[in-house]
Amino acid sequence: AIIVYRLPWTWKCSKLLMKFIHAGLNTIAMILAIVSMVAVFEFHNAKNIPNMYSLHSWIGLTAVIFYSLQLFLGFAVFLLPFAPLHLRVALMPIHVYSGLAIFATVIATALMGITEKLIFALKNPAYSASPPEATLVNCLGLLLVIFGSLILWMASRPHWKRPPAENAKILRPIGAAPEGTEVESTMTNSSNADKSDLRSNTEAARKQNIKFDEAGQRSTM
Amino acid sequence: AIIVYRLPWTWKCSKLLMKFIHAGLNTIAMILAIVSMVAVFEFHNAKNIPNMYSLHSWIGLTAVIFYSLQLFLGFAVFLLPFAPLHLRVALMPIHVYSGLAIFATVIATALMGITEKLIFALKNPAYSASPPEATLVNCLGLLLVIFGSLILWMASRPHWKRPPAENAKILRPIGAAPEGTEVESTMTNSSNADKSDLRSNTEAARKQNIKFDEAGQRSTM
Repeated sequence: AIIVYRLPWTWKCSKLLMKFIHAGLNTIAMILAIVSMVAVFEFHNAKNIPNMYSLHSWIGLTAVIFYSLQLFLGFAVFLLPFAPLHLRVALMPIHVYSGLAIFATVIATALMGITEKLIFALKNPAYSASPPEATLVNCLGLLLVIFGSLILWMASRPHWKRPPAENAKILRPIGAAPEGTEVESTMTNSSNADKSDLRSNTEAARKQNIKFDEAGQRSTM
Repeated sequence: AIIVYRLPWTWKCSKLLMKFIHAGLNTIAMILAIVSMVAVFEFHNAKNIPNMYSLHSWIGLTAVIFYSLQLFLGFAVFLLPFAPLHLRVALMPIHVYSGLAIFATVIATALMGITEKLIFALKNPAYSASPPEATLVNCLGLLLVIFGSLILWMASRPHWKRPPAENAKILRPIGAAPEGTEVESTMTNSSNADKSDLRSNTEAARKQNIKFDEAGQRSTM
């Protein structure tokens, strides 16, 4: 769901369709998260294992709570047509950052869960004797880290961004400012300061650009 | 070390001094990492615990190897005066991204280490009985996640970037392009495409900006 806006084939879709794909995939992920949490609690109860004692469970539950908040806010602010533009502008950088932060936290939680499971499940031979299962699952953990790094790399490359919508040229006279309409989301709300640093390097210009920056966290709004 | 370029007090320093602070702090961290790794291996050997069997150790060692590579390359390319500009330009986005990725991986490794230690050290009462130590250390783990999130937030905000060097105005006629000299590092090499999207939304302009982007991953070079 994170890299929906980074895939060339989605650039052909309308912005609304892209939003639906992004929201839909995240909704599926949320449903799976809830199903698996219910499964964990049922499993613990059936085996008389206490719930919510481990760091894995604390961080995992925190991540799921933030994820549901993220989903709800994303739906209310960016998908429904009621939120005013300035609210979308203000929330987009937070939405983008917290999406990536939740993603990274979930990977860390999975790694902790794998560690726990290996320690608890491997008894004879123990985890410390490095049986083949231990090596296999360690490799899975490493792959998880590589996967996370690649996704975050894709999400943070400015030139992997979705190009401006094709119809922008038709809907608006060329040269008109498309602020808040056809511009795309970026991981870090890429600074406008950069380009104009190339042109004029004065402190005044910088300050102006910062203002631009704060007011114009433009995105797939 | 990551946020050296994001602290207002360092903006008063020269670029070279900032680089020295960044490199110096990272060198201290590297030394501490080596000392603690030696301590771990000595401890394992003294207690007859196998080395390098856990996912924690695998990912931790990978992170340390990448960190030393990062330190060596950073020193050779960005601190020593021999690397040509185009090499600095090409490597800076990778340097910035891998610094942040290593940082996040190290936090995940620490969380796995905490999980392991709690399971192994707490026996009577066990970790699953949630003794006070378990709650305390779980809170430490949560704080570690919050710390990591804050650092990554600071590192990825474009308007927290170091402003252009003061002497830039003196060294160069106003309005001259300071490309590759006085511009600063960004987490994602913030796209130039954004600003001009506001001005002209044509596909041609976008392509030109992407070229700018790729050629001009400008930084504290």
